[in-house]
Amino acid sequence: MKIKFLILAFCFVSAPLFAQKTYESTWESIDSRPVPTWFEDAKFGIFIHWGLYSVPAYSPTARDKVGVYERYAEWYWKRWQDPSKTQHFFTDFHNKAFGPNVKYQDFTQHFKAELFQPDEWARLFENAGAKYVVLTSKHHEGFTLWPSKQSWNWNAVDVGPHRDLLGDLTKAVKNKNIKMGYYYSLLEWYNPLYKKETLNEYIDQHMFPQMKDLVNTYHPDLVWTDGEWDYTSDKLRSTEFLSWLYNQSPVRESVVVNDRWGKETRSKHGGFYTTEYDLVHNGDANGLDFARPWEECRGIAGSFGYNRNENLEDYSSSEQLVHMLINKVARGGNLLLNIGPTADGRIPVIMQQRLTDIGSWLKVNGEAIYSTRKWAKAPKVTPTTKQYFTQKGNDLYLITTEFPKIPLQISGLKKPVSVSLLGSDVAVRSTFKNGVLTISPPAITPGNNPSQYAWAFKLAGASL
Amino acid sequence: MKIKFLILAFCFVSAPLFAQKTYESTWESIDSRPVPTWFEDAKFGIFIHWGLYSVPAYSPTARDKVGVYERYAEWYWKRWQDPSKTQHFFTDFHNKAFGPNVKYQDFTQHFKAELFQPDEWARLFENAGAKYVVLTSKHHEGFTLWPSKQSWNWNAVDVGPHRDLLGDLTKAVKNKNIKMGYYYSLLEWYNPLYKKETLNEYIDQHMFPQMKDLVNTYHPDLVWTDGEWDYTSDKLRSTEFLSWLYNQSPVRESVVVNDRWGKETRSKHGGFYTTEYDLVHNGDANGLDFARPWEECRGIAGSFGYNRNENLEDYSSSEQLVHMLINKVARGGNLLLNIGPTADGRIPVIMQQRLTDIGSWLKVNGEAIYSTRKWAKAPKVTPTTKQYFTQKGNDLYLITTEFPKIPLQISGLKKPVSVSLLGSDVAVRSTFKNGVLTISPPAITPGNNPSQYAWAFKLAGASL
Amino acid sequence: MKIKFLILAFCFVSAPLFAQKTYESTWESIDSRPVPTWFEDAKFGIFIHWGLYSVPAYSPTARDKVGVYERYAEWYWKRWQDPSKTQHFFTDFHNKAFGPNVKYQDFTQHFKAELFQPDEWARLFENAGAKYVVLTSKHHEGFTLWPSKQSWNWNAVDVGPHRDLLGDLTKAVKNKNIKMGYYYSLLEWYNPLYKKETLNEYIDQHMFPQMKDLVNTYHPDLVWTDGEWDYTSDKLRSTEFLSWLYNQSPVRESVVVNDRWGKETRSKHGGFYTTEYDLVHNGDANGLDFARPWEECRGIAGSFGYNRNENLEDYSSSEQLVHMLINKVARGGNLLLNIGPTADGRIPVIMQQRLTDIGSWLKVNGEAIYSTRKWAKAPKVTPTTKQYFTQKGNDLYLITTEFPKIPLQISGLKKPVSVSLLGSDVAVRSTFKNGVLTISPPAITPGNNPSQYAWAFKLAGASL
Amino acid sequence: MKIKFLILAFCFVSAPLFAQKTYESTWESIDSRPVPTWFEDAKFGIFIHWGLYSVPAYSPTARDKVGVYERYAEWYWKRWQDPSKTQHFFTDFHNKAFGPNVKYQDFTQHFKAELFQPDEWARLFENAGAKYVVLTSKHHEGFTLWPSKQSWNWNAVDVGPHRDLLGDLTKAVKNKNIKMGYYYSLLEWYNPLYKKETLNEYIDQHMFPQMKDLVNTYHPDLVWTDGEWDYTSDKLRSTEFLSWLYNQSPVRESVVVNDRWGKETRSKHGGFYTTEYDLVHNGDANGLDFARPWEECRGIAGSFGYNRNENLEDYSSSEQLVHMLINKVARGGNLLLNIGPTADGRIPVIMQQRLTDIGSWLKVNGEAIYSTRKWAKAPKVTPTTKQYFTQKGNDLYLITTEFPKIPLQISGLKKPVSVSLLGSDVAVRSTFKNGVLTISPPAITPGNNPSQYAWAFKLAGASL
Repeated sequence: MKIKFLILAFCFVSAPLFAQKTYESTWESIDSRPVPTWFEDAKFGIFIHWGLYSVPAYSPTARDKVGVYERYAEWYWKRWQDPSKTQHFFTDFHNKAFGPNVKYQDFTQHFKAELFQPDEWARLFENAGAKYVVLTSKHHEGFTLWPSKQSWNWNAVDVGPHRDLLGDLTKAVKNKNIKMGYYYSLLEWYNPLYKKETLNEYIDQHMFPQMKDLVNTYHPDLVWTDGEWDYTSDKLRSTEFLSWLYNQSPVRESVVVNDRWGKETRSKHGGFYTTEYDLVHNGDANGLDFARPWEECRGIAGSFGYNRNENLEDYSSSEQLVHMLINKVARGGNLLLNIGPTADGRIPVIMQQRLTDIGSWLKVNGEAIYSTRKWAKAPKVTPTTKQYFTQKGNDLYLITTEFPKIPLQISGLKKPVSVSLLGSDVAVRSTFKNGVLTISPPAITPGNNPSQYAWAFKLAGASL
Repeated sequence: MKIKFLILAFCFVSAPLFAQKTYESTWESIDSRPVPTWFEDAKFGIFIHWGLYSVPAYSPTARDKVGVYERYAEWYWKRWQDPSKTQHFFTDFHNKAFGPNVKYQDFTQHFKAELFQPDEWARLFENAGAKYVVLTSKHHEGFTLWPSKQSWNWNAVDVGPHRDLLGDLTKAVKNKNIKMGYYYSLLEWYNPLYKKETLNEYIDQHMFPQMKDLVNTYHPDLVWTDGEWDYTSDKLRSTEFLSWLYNQSPVRESVVVNDRWGKETRSKHGGFYTTEYDLVHNGDANGLDFARPWEECRGIAGSFGYNRNENLEDYSSSEQLVHMLINKVARGGNLLLNIGPTADGRIPVIMQQRLTDIGSWLKVNGEAIYSTRKWAKAPKVTPTTKQYFTQKGNDLYLITTEFPKIPLQISGLKKPVSVSLLGSDVAVRSTFKNGVLTISPPAITPGNNPSQYAWAFKLAGASL
Repeated sequence: MKIKFLILAFCFVSAPLFAQKTYESTWESIDSRPVPTWFEDAKFGIFIHWGLYSVPAYSPTARDKVGVYERYAEWYWKRWQDPSKTQHFFTDFHNKAFGPNVKYQDFTQHFKAELFQPDEWARLFENAGAKYVVLTSKHHEGFTLWPSKQSWNWNAVDVGPHRDLLGDLTKAVKNKNIKMGYYYSLLEWYNPLYKKETLNEYIDQHMFPQMKDLVNTYHPDLVWTDGEWDYTSDKLRSTEFLSWLYNQSPVRESVVVNDRWGKETRSKHGGFYTTEYDLVHNGDANGLDFARPWEECRGIAGSFGYNRNENLEDYSSSEQLVHMLINKVARGGNLLLNIGPTADGRIPVIMQQRLTDIGSWLKVNGEAIYSTRKWAKAPKVTPTTKQYFTQKGNDLYLITTEFPKIPLQISGLKKPVSVSLLGSDVAVRSTFKNGVLTISPPAITPGNNPSQYAWAFKLAGASL
Repeated sequence: MKIKFLILAFCFVSAPLFAQKTYESTWESIDSRPVPTWFEDAKFGIFIHWGLYSVPAYSPTARDKVGVYERYAEWYWKRWQDPSKTQHFFTDFHNKAFGPNVKYQDFTQHFKAELFQPDEWARLFENAGAKYVVLTSKHHEGFTLWPSKQSWNWNAVDVGPHRDLLGDLTKAVKNKNIKMGYYYSLLEWYNPLYKKETLNEYIDQHMFPQMKDLVNTYHPDLVWTDGEWDYTSDKLRSTEFLSWLYNQSPVRESVVVNDRWGKETRSKHGGFYTTEYDLVHNGDANGLDFARPWEECRGIAGSFGYNRNENLEDYSSSEQLVHMLINKVARGGNLLLNIGPTADGRIPVIMQQRLTDIGSWLKVNGEAIYSTRKWAKAPKVTPTTKQYFTQKGNDLYLITTEFPKIPLQISGLKKPVSVSLLGSDVAVRSTFKNGVLTISPPAITPGNNPSQYAWAFKLAGASL
């Protein structure tokens, strides 16, 4: 008894000491750490872009024939200040809406978040079926949503909302057992220290203290860096930070990071890989074959920061979004769908509608999404694909984004123990012959339809 | 030939002279004028509440357990200033969002309409299937959306947007061949002339000049008065204005008016009768049996003026709105569905979504709605009614808000020449026996469904 | 006894009935009313220009080589809006200081009068030796400093200071036994009713109600109209108002008016005549020989409304102002010296300094100013005059604006009973020979000097 | 010839090398450097407090019975935020003027300096007879008037005026051959790094970089530190900075510093000693007997930062200021007289008046002030002193602040070569007997008075 107890105690106490590998400040070492499983199981996260850019909340849109990256309202300051072929949109808008005498810094006056209700936000995310949230702690403007000492009078507590927006949302999200992560921009467009000559001062006096403050104070589940394109990860000393994060930080065991740590790192180093509006740095999103867990991020419409200039036609429909989620998951990815709150602290109702519609679909079909993995035998996904597959243990799931008019045929599997339509008790007739499973369209009318947008068949025990 | 020409010319020229009845300034005479037919044919209109109240854009909602009328954001000034059991909501909000030093008049600074695109609005209304629009030319605050001489420095051209919002929207709406009307509040809460002792000064120097200016300058198809409850129509001299409108104004032949002309006039005098969130002044909307054309007005959520405090749960779904439209039309009414634009001149995207969904439904099913009349033999509509009827000439329309699981049975009609499902070429099987028409559920799946929310069967030639 | 009492009672009661002449609405009748004596005795008044123009508080100055009338900051709205050779000054300033998006009406936000202390103002006026005050109740902008019903949301109670500035100042000034008057602009640049076609509406619905409201509510001692140059007094119906003022108003016996009642009336009709920066409409101020009491009005610097653009070099010195007062009084006039309070409700300290310096001089020398009249035998005043004369009863006063280095000689008088220097007990030696009074410079050093700027000798009983 | 040239060249080139002593980072070494002579010769400087506090521009005054230090408007932020017995003045004012929702940082919106004309300022300083200017580069609020990299978005170029106020004024002042210095607050009330635990970070990352940037970029003639009372000079590492300033900086030979370098340093270490509103840290200003050059600083009224709440009664008169200057100079000190510009960039005209009056006096009497030294034999200065003495070479100057009524008697000197009244050619009669000089009041009247306020007699060659 005594010995047993001692051994147990020993194990319990020493476990972290033994289990915890020490990571060196090299990519080889950093990359050797596996992405914690929770991330791959989560599938669906909410991205939130909120900052001073939520005040002008403007960018041209697809209507204006501008490129994908030129629709980003969170780039207002840069687009408005720096000469480019889209600058005139911003100049014209700014002069009309605010006048030339109003500067970007003046927007702090109008970022008040007076209607911000973090518990309501968290409830919405839960209803949407999201398993994690990533909030912009600081975007390229340098303005922080938490009271950063390194960003005095340029953070949401000192000016504007006069509230720790990040802290309050973190608490509400964690209360719902949803993972909480932070976007953090390595670069700051107009910070006078962010210059080649003073980059180390910037890192030592500003960036590292901020990143560590975020981690030590708020214990994020995920650190989502960005703005890594000006310098190599060497100059940005990214592995230095990551080795601290993995070895010493309070979240060293659970934290997940992405791949944006220097101009050469995307789809190559760090944690999970990222795509953005389907753009992949080292590969083709439509033919994604990543060795790593990956995640697509994008807005519901064309911008991350709220863009008042976007109309219904710019927004993806709920159907499109559900199809997008299915597409990513079937290919082994996550979807980090972005919302852009308003300067007064609301999530636009149309975004609430979209998230709620996705959530309604997931309530019925989540079994075919969460914790699944890409099915190795699935036909290659193409732009015209309508049938998608996921796998969980021995079960396969066939998700069709078009209600079948003719029987569906699947090969590469063994005879399923049963075939059913998720959310429905209408019998599904199927046959298995010559290694091919044939499923007849079930008797679904508008009166007994389990869900809109897409239908998931569970092929129990069909995995070879 | 010559004689024929002369007669024709005579008719043409003199028609107005003979046809135009002269209306006296009495209710008996005014009420004798029929409501022009276009109104009863239109069925679906868009109400727009836009004014300084669109800046605070706040009211408590159903969540806050307040009554229907206490959810109206356009009443902000009054609710905030006057003691009542809901005042604290407004005081708390105002102090938090603006501070006690900000007065209602200061909102002119923030009503800028910088994103207002009237042609886009009109295109949306057209897509929604709306046949008329009613804009608040002036609400109880007294602020006018057109450059009223009687409201110097308290109108949208002198202050705030510095634009003739009403004129610009009128032009865009008329360009789409949609009828244009104006809401006009007879009362002004805080106008110092709007007092018992100076009521005639108010009418002669302010109200009548404004109303005539609106009519003479913008030629409205509809005049939608409100704020009539403080005085009898006698004190407000309403028949004096109406006899001018009917006899002398440029719109004397086509203009439609409502029934809000004095504290005693609703559902009794004027043109069409009005209900509001189903409240009827002299009757019960759920058992409406008006002798006159009538119209229900209401918001998509609980307010007319934009209320930022309303979340998805406060908004009616597209399904609910389509059902509401069907319900009103089947009972002989119109639906004037309200939208609340924002202070910067946008129609919130969730409202665009709702209107577009209604429009999509009407594109398929409009035949069963526009220009129809209540079917005299229809079963009485109750809160649980799922099958509604409309009539147009010899044809009947059966609209079901629930996809039928069992055969539908209808009596009180003759055997239809044909039975079809609008928007679908799927055959509809029906039998007619003993004066009863029986329709079997057609073979509709999620794959060939002509429309969501409700399904309309055309019973050609079935009217007795 | 009894009879005597009756007669007395009769006299007492009926006095107003008999004494009060009834004035007809003709200039002949109106002009027959003498200017009440208090006005000619007062000599020194304070003019106050305060309004929305106190917010931009800008005009070019003499440095900018602009004419006298182009230095008036209270004309900001007009100068900025209307093409003229000085418009660019205003456009440049406005765009720099506020930006092109800020409109004149937006200035209401910044007119807060938060430091306004009417009792302090009144104390200052008393210390300055002023006997009356004239405040702009409304300038050409139409904005009223009292809560005028005819100017809803365009007055200082509804917007801006949210305070009855006029009422509060009136109370404070009257408490000090100083007379209170109001400037009132007949014209309003941008009031849409102030047009040839609607002038009578403007007068009946706006101007007369406002003027009567002012008189009935605040009982002014003086009505100082302006903005009379667009129409003849006939069109403006000025004698109609004046006959009401003189016959029926509560101030009919004491009120004083000026001569600005129509484009033809200056120096011709009404009460006292007015000059402005020495400009006379029908005459030459330097050779003034008015049949009527008159009054020069001007700013301490070049503007009436506060002009932030004026520096020390633009301000008259205390010495210049004392000399100016002496000059006007010696010629039978009053000085109405203007101050321009700031938008926050202060009288700039430099203006306090000037007024206090004048008051210090008047404390010593007021005997030679108040209640005096022009001395008929005085040498004609020219630009180089250094010795001025006033008369009160049998006494003459010689005021020298230069301390004499050689004996002074005066003729046209009889031998004075005594000659003394006001404020000093230093003996004054004089001789009278051949009708000429010779006064030796008294023994004054910087150590016993009774006053700066000017020295007054009293020639007791010297009037012929 | 050749040799001479060589020697000259050698001296010229090597002088700095040899002459320049190297200062160690100890007080003993630092204190061994003499204060450059220009400072003691200058006598009269202008202090300028300008910052965000110029926006509220408020403090209670002597009228409100608050102490000398509680009248400082530049302390607004602290006084308003921190509990104290004067806090209610600030709370009341702030709530009335701005409302509780406005924060200190919001004042950046209203600090626009749109009327700032540095050349006009410099001209005024020159006319005032000032020989140096000290501008607040940064006060306790931490806001800098130059574009400091260490104060991003909290400086006058990034926010507010969007102009390098310090740089532009420096240029204008130097153009007039007036010395330019900077006030710099070592402390920052609310800078999150200004804490005991992070003081070295504050110094290394913020304070030293700022101070060196100021010196390297703008080459000040004077560095006027303040806010030294929280820490000892040891903690603030002041001698470290000073040894850099004296050894390596571009102004190492000419720069003058004061004595505020740590809580123990006033009147003890550094350059010249400072008093403030006559308060001396280690001594009694009325009995000043400093071993070092010293300087009294104070406002014209009771505040350094502009205080709108100050009225004429709060301002020192020109006479009082001239007397104050004489008093300080006679005791070996300088007067650094403060002005508080307004947020829009003006020097209030009353301050222009005071400076110009001092300048007028100095134009006549400057010979008795500039480059003089305290006269060792002068009677001790007391609060009732009216005769003051200064010495320059062999000449003495007697300055009397009261025009003499009886002869003046002076001892401790030798018979002067001549006695004259500065600015006047009126003969001055004097006798010298038994070592006593007796001067009769000269024949001055208001007509030939050389200057107001005070009269200076030159006693040529009278110094023993």
